[in-house]
Amino acid sequence: MKKLLNNVDDAVAESLAGLCAAHGGLIRFLPEYRTVVRADAPNAKVAVISGGGSGHEPLHCGCVGFGMLDAACAGEIFTSPTPEQICEAARATDGGKGILMLVKNYTGDVMNFQMAADILRAEGREAEQVIVNDDVAVRDSTWTAGRRGVAGTFLAEKIVGAAAESGTSLGELKELAENVNANVRTMGVALTSCTVPAVGKPTFDLPGDEVELGIGIHGEPGRERVKRMTSRETVEYLANAVLDDLPFREGDEVLAFVNGMGGTPLSELCIVYGDLKKILDGRGIITARSLVGNYVTSLDMQGCSITVLKLGALSRALWDYPVQTPALRWGR
Amino acid sequence: MKKLLNNVDDAVAESLAGLCAAHGGLIRFLPEYRTVVRADAPNAKVAVISGGGSGHEPLHCGCVGFGMLDAACAGEIFTSPTPEQICEAARATDGGKGILMLVKNYTGDVMNFQMAADILRAEGREAEQVIVNDDVAVRDSTWTAGRRGVAGTFLAEKIVGAAAESGTSLGELKELAENVNANVRTMGVALTSCTVPAVGKPTFDLPGDEVELGIGIHGEPGRERVKRMTSRETVEYLANAVLDDLPFREGDEVLAFVNGMGGTPLSELCIVYGDLKKILDGRGIITARSLVGNYVTSLDMQGCSITVLKLGALSRALWDYPVQTPALRWGR
Repeated sequence: MKKLLNNVDDAVAESLAGLCAAHGGLIRFLPEYRTVVRADAPNAKVAVISGGGSGHEPLHCGCVGFGMLDAACAGEIFTSPTPEQICEAARATDGGKGILMLVKNYTGDVMNFQMAADILRAEGREAEQVIVNDDVAVRDSTWTAGRRGVAGTFLAEKIVGAAAESGTSLGELKELAENVNANVRTMGVALTSCTVPAVGKPTFDLPGDEVELGIGIHGEPGRERVKRMTSRETVEYLANAVLDDLPFREGDEVLAFVNGMGGTPLSELCIVYGDLKKILDGRGIITARSLVGNYVTSLDMQGCSITVLKLGALSRALWDYPVQTPALRWGR
Repeated sequence: MKKLLNNVDDAVAESLAGLCAAHGGLIRFLPEYRTVVRADAPNAKVAVISGGGSGHEPLHCGCVGFGMLDAACAGEIFTSPTPEQICEAARATDGGKGILMLVKNYTGDVMNFQMAADILRAEGREAEQVIVNDDVAVRDSTWTAGRRGVAGTFLAEKIVGAAAESGTSLGELKELAENVNANVRTMGVALTSCTVPAVGKPTFDLPGDEVELGIGIHGEPGRERVKRMTSRETVEYLANAVLDDLPFREGDEVLAFVNGMGGTPLSELCIVYGDLKKILDGRGIITARSLVGNYVTSLDMQGCSITVLKLGALSRALWDYPVQTPALRWGR
């Protein structure tokens, strides 16, 4: 294993410290709780927080800042943060209007965020949570009951964060987050495994001429392994699974999101996006917004996922809302 | 070789078409010349253009847009664009105030941009060029006489593009570009080779426990191969070479840039940035601005480069100037 790190035990903390050092104007690191919070003081708004296992950068800590998350806490690689970390993230940013927690659907995350919510409520705080489960590939995978939460989480954090910034109440935010989750679908493909630093070797073996369709962002098994395919064939498989699931219909306005798994260059993601756009055009689906890049990754895995989010007037406006985070910056 | 593409011959064109489809509001694709131009009509300003071999995405075509480049043309992977492509990029964006061409120092690029400049001048246009050669690793490498142009080019395109946007004349822009080049230094490291699609196998062999220091962005030989090192050791080697070259001195204000080679996840780049920041702090060098991410890549290569740019009041203001490109967006 060759990686740019110092020692395995400190990798997550050092990476977050480096992220915060590079974006000092936007975010601040609370090392004791491995939590990143906004550098500007929380104003009178609902605090939107998230967190999860590390290894998916820039999700979640790179999503902290104006117009997105107020705080995020990081577990070890592919391991949930503790209830204590989650509570600290909430306490550091609760401005008295309540806390909304966005949680990817993994058993450990769901359990720990639930425990944190219970603790926070016992302290007299208002806390709600919304589970994101956008991955159409499989049900009841490793670490998950039901569908997994994957790249759709990034879109939910952007849209819900914008709504919170503009003054939306906790109850309305919860409804909005549930609505985003109800309208977003994702499926991914792996060309290679990722390598967890503490393990030192690839998480799974994938022969040199095969890819895994429906891969999870921790390398969990997908739907099937097939011989290497073209971008067009890959996108057809993934996009059809995604589009038929909601289903998305002719005339729908969508945000089309091609997400890299961490080790795939932008040039390939752009080829994938071009192929996805043709399928959407062919079905009469209107690509109103788009996003292409590495946002919800799986360490150094090569591959990508395709996410389609059905937009309404509100979610479209909230997507366009100004944002200032390490992962996304525009309009302010 | 497993890559997300359809066929090798169309990969560059399909990737650019996908990039432009994803950023339709910012850029437009001229497929006949494999050139990307700004979607907004050129106003009365100097046209700043660039280009080079593909495989370094988002450089250069992802740098087209408000506040950065007016056009960029793409050669085949690691192959210079033709004089005809460069002339078309210039003609499509020349608003009568002249054309500044930013060229990475590779023999083919320098020759073809020179030929293009001669043709454009013969047409009665004003055309100037500035060569970027920021790589301190080696002199007279494969494809290069003198030092190679690498990640510093991205910073030059941002700063010079901002100056052009704010109305700077061709002569002053040329001077500014030369000044940026005189104040920027870079050096990189490869953990793995890249794989050129048309070749189908890694460009060079690098044993599983070795890294190559001073690597070029096409996989050209660097200074030396050494056993795997920690981030701290790697950064010390690269940063010292970079800082001692100008040299950068105590009290200097700099932009510190950790650039990924394409296959290295953001989490590792953040660890590298943290280690770089400590070295800068230790030398009393002031990190006024920073950038961390994949901007000047080498296909799927794992590794990174470290760039330090000495800032003055003008270059700092121009770095902060609004920009709207696929690669960078802020402030507007």
